[in-house]
Amino acid sequence: MWTAVVGFRTKVQQVCSHKLLQVQKGRSTLIRSPLCKSHWQNTAGSVQAAQPFNMSEMIQKVEVLDANHFVRVHWEVGGESLYPSVWLRDNCQCPNCFLQSAKARKLPLEDLDVNIGVKDVTLIGGKKVQITWPDEHTSEFEADWLNKRCFSEQARAKMQEELFLPERLYWGSDLQLPTMPFEEVLCSDESAYKWMSTLKKVGIVVLTGAATRQGELVKLGKRIGFLRLTFYGPTWQVQDKVDANNVAYTSGKLSFHTDYPVLQHPPGLQFLHCIKQTSTGGESEVVDGFHVANKLKEQNLQAFQILSSTLVDFTDIGVDFCDFSMQCKQRILDIGQVIRINYNNATRDTVFDIPVEKVQPFYASLKNFVYLLNSPEHTFTYKMKPGDIVTFDNWRLLHGRQSYQSGREISRHLEGAYADWDVGMSRLRILKNTVLNEK
Amino acid sequence: MWTAVVGFRTKVQQVCSHKLLQVQKGRSTLIRSPLCKSHWQNTAGSVQAAQPFNMSEMIQKVEVLDANHFVRVHWEVGGESLYPSVWLRDNCQCPNCFLQSAKARKLPLEDLDVNIGVKDVTLIGGKKVQITWPDEHTSEFEADWLNKRCFSEQARAKMQEELFLPERLYWGSDLQLPTMPFEEVLCSDESAYKWMSTLKKVGIVVLTGAATRQGELVKLGKRIGFLRLTFYGPTWQVQDKVDANNVAYTSGKLSFHTDYPVLQHPPGLQFLHCIKQTSTGGESEVVDGFHVANKLKEQNLQAFQILSSTLVDFTDIGVDFCDFSMQCKQRILDIGQVIRINYNNATRDTVFDIPVEKVQPFYASLKNFVYLLNSPEHTFTYKMKPGDIVTFDNWRLLHGRQSYQSGREISRHLEGAYADWDVGMSRLRILKNTVLNEK
Repeated sequence: MWTAVVGFRTKVQQVCSHKLLQVQKGRSTLIRSPLCKSHWQNTAGSVQAAQPFNMSEMIQKVEVLDANHFVRVHWEVGGESLYPSVWLRDNCQCPNCFLQSAKARKLPLEDLDVNIGVKDVTLIGGKKVQITWPDEHTSEFEADWLNKRCFSEQARAKMQEELFLPERLYWGSDLQLPTMPFEEVLCSDESAYKWMSTLKKVGIVVLTGAATRQGELVKLGKRIGFLRLTFYGPTWQVQDKVDANNVAYTSGKLSFHTDYPVLQHPPGLQFLHCIKQTSTGGESEVVDGFHVANKLKEQNLQAFQILSSTLVDFTDIGVDFCDFSMQCKQRILDIGQVIRINYNNATRDTVFDIPVEKVQPFYASLKNFVYLLNSPEHTFTYKMKPGDIVTFDNWRLLHGRQSYQSGREISRHLEGAYADWDVGMSRLRILKNTVLNEK
Repeated sequence: MWTAVVGFRTKVQQVCSHKLLQVQKGRSTLIRSPLCKSHWQNTAGSVQAAQPFNMSEMIQKVEVLDANHFVRVHWEVGGESLYPSVWLRDNCQCPNCFLQSAKARKLPLEDLDVNIGVKDVTLIGGKKVQITWPDEHTSEFEADWLNKRCFSEQARAKMQEELFLPERLYWGSDLQLPTMPFEEVLCSDESAYKWMSTLKKVGIVVLTGAATRQGELVKLGKRIGFLRLTFYGPTWQVQDKVDANNVAYTSGKLSFHTDYPVLQHPPGLQFLHCIKQTSTGGESEVVDGFHVANKLKEQNLQAFQILSSTLVDFTDIGVDFCDFSMQCKQRILDIGQVIRINYNNATRDTVFDIPVEKVQPFYASLKNFVYLLNSPEHTFTYKMKPGDIVTFDNWRLLHGRQSYQSGREISRHLEGAYADWDVGMSRLRILKNTVLNEK
């Protein structure tokens, strides 16, 4: 089952490592590829120690520099780390400065001297650094704790990779759709970990064998923490509806889009549970928007720049869970603080808040992006079976649907739900620790 | 009751209009002050018409320019508007191109010729523009609809102001806290509109006379749409707790912070309902973070630049509604796509992902910002009475609490809840239409 992912790992990771730094801006950690691991492994002990299960580090020597404004730690295994005194004082772990039960800082910044220097530093048994401050307050720091927080570029990159699990595998029409049994994900932490980490890495996983009734997605929501409530309700029913308040609630074709760009923070995760499937049509389509955005940048830099800078008005007005009147401005290629695609041609507003001469170039750029989205080497088509649940990254993938015959009775029924990547990532970190510690 | 707001309107609006453009980046609409209205009112009819209840506009003449790539509309009242042909075709309102029940676009971008020119244009009775396209498809556009979507800078600014209600009143310790009866807000649309629009404009409103039991905030959530579920539950109880999993759940002082910067999209709205209040201490403190950020920019540009560019690691690990392991990187002064303050000294991580030499300058900048936050002319202190509900803008205000005596029994109890500004703004737009149309 996992060969699907592993199968094209090499090819995809090469694309990945090569391209990531092109789209990347701001939070490099979000798209750093762990391919660089080998290069990190050749660096100082301080970096080695940042690995999940590092041997505890031994300190050879500790000294004070720059008029006591920095503390330098020399590691037994080689390499050294430099810590600003102000950061050490700010992060004192004593009960007066830090609330252990909340794992949170108590020391108010108002009480921090930003020009502080250490008065005295001592090394205790190679495992602990004790600092005395000018006011005689003392702080103790474990070698491992210091080691993981080394300020070197490699150590920070390694730590950020552990915190945000940024590995990403890009794909096109060659995608071998990762699938897993729904029940396994609910019952086994190891399966849940495989599900979430593949969802983070590949962007899509299909869970099979769920009951063909409403409510299965609520179980999946509980599995990660909770689902996200929106104006379309806790979960929502995708089927042909009279006076549809959303284009998805018809039997028409849906071209590639991300859901809910009209929210300032669109749902990161989307779950679609197939309860009933029509015999003719209704195939699902997905494309890796990040992969395609990289292609656009290669082939048409100006289009890429226009789509990643133009703020587009989105709108959604109607009644569902309650009445709503939504407006939002989003860049279609959002490469600012977060990497995200925001595109839904249905809710793109008639209001367009840009100078008149920029309108046609924008459309030409969008057309180019949409052309790439639809090109055969990028798109992947599948048809859901009743009981299937597709889970995918709604910030990365664009999805669509082929039209189908609508009749007097409902011939196709998917139940859908959203969750935040904040919640998904939290679950993934917890599962990672649980599963890796079990081994 | 409203003199509170109106009272310092002039002074504050001057500050406001003067300062807004300093912090502002990206979405000018978010912080544009409507003070400029007078200047908009001196502009062409196309702008006049963008007012909420504009008289329907009459068209004097319509013509085609630039090899049929633009349509120019001349208004009876003077002024003209230019519309790109590609935008007009993209926004055809006919049933084949637009789904009225969803108020959403059906025409796929794949079918849009981005180089299209109009074949023929006719003016129907000065009220409607009819366009025939090269493939004989026809589109009709009402004069009012076109008028509101004029691409002139003034018309776009006016439309964006209607959509996002960006007026903002800045304040310091001179704040006259706006208050309203809780019941009125629940029962009267006009009161609810006053509540929401003041909350948007001033950032804080206290609702009085709620029952002194849990659950009142759920009613307030229903009033706007729904509350936001987080790892701390649908609503949460702020009181002194054993093994507190959050610094707020102690009786200690809380220095100024915004809630939940560890979420990629922190809650925009916060509600705190006072159920029980301690006799000594426990005063609440608030400060207008946007106002203070402007002051910092005036007084220490480098500090402002460091705080608005450094990505700070926030962390929150524990168990509450369910287990969680949150990580996020945020700029403390977020002036990117959104204007937002992200600051909570408790959850600011010990992990700090910046080069070592940038650490001390960061602390010095933060210290300067925190000094300004705490300076007497900026802070406002109040003590909640049982039955009070404070509602405030958690992207703008920083709030804190004075310490109080903790005893064997709970002497102070606030219930809290969050909501998204997306939901709040949606309710505000609906209420605005309801209330203004009633008049």
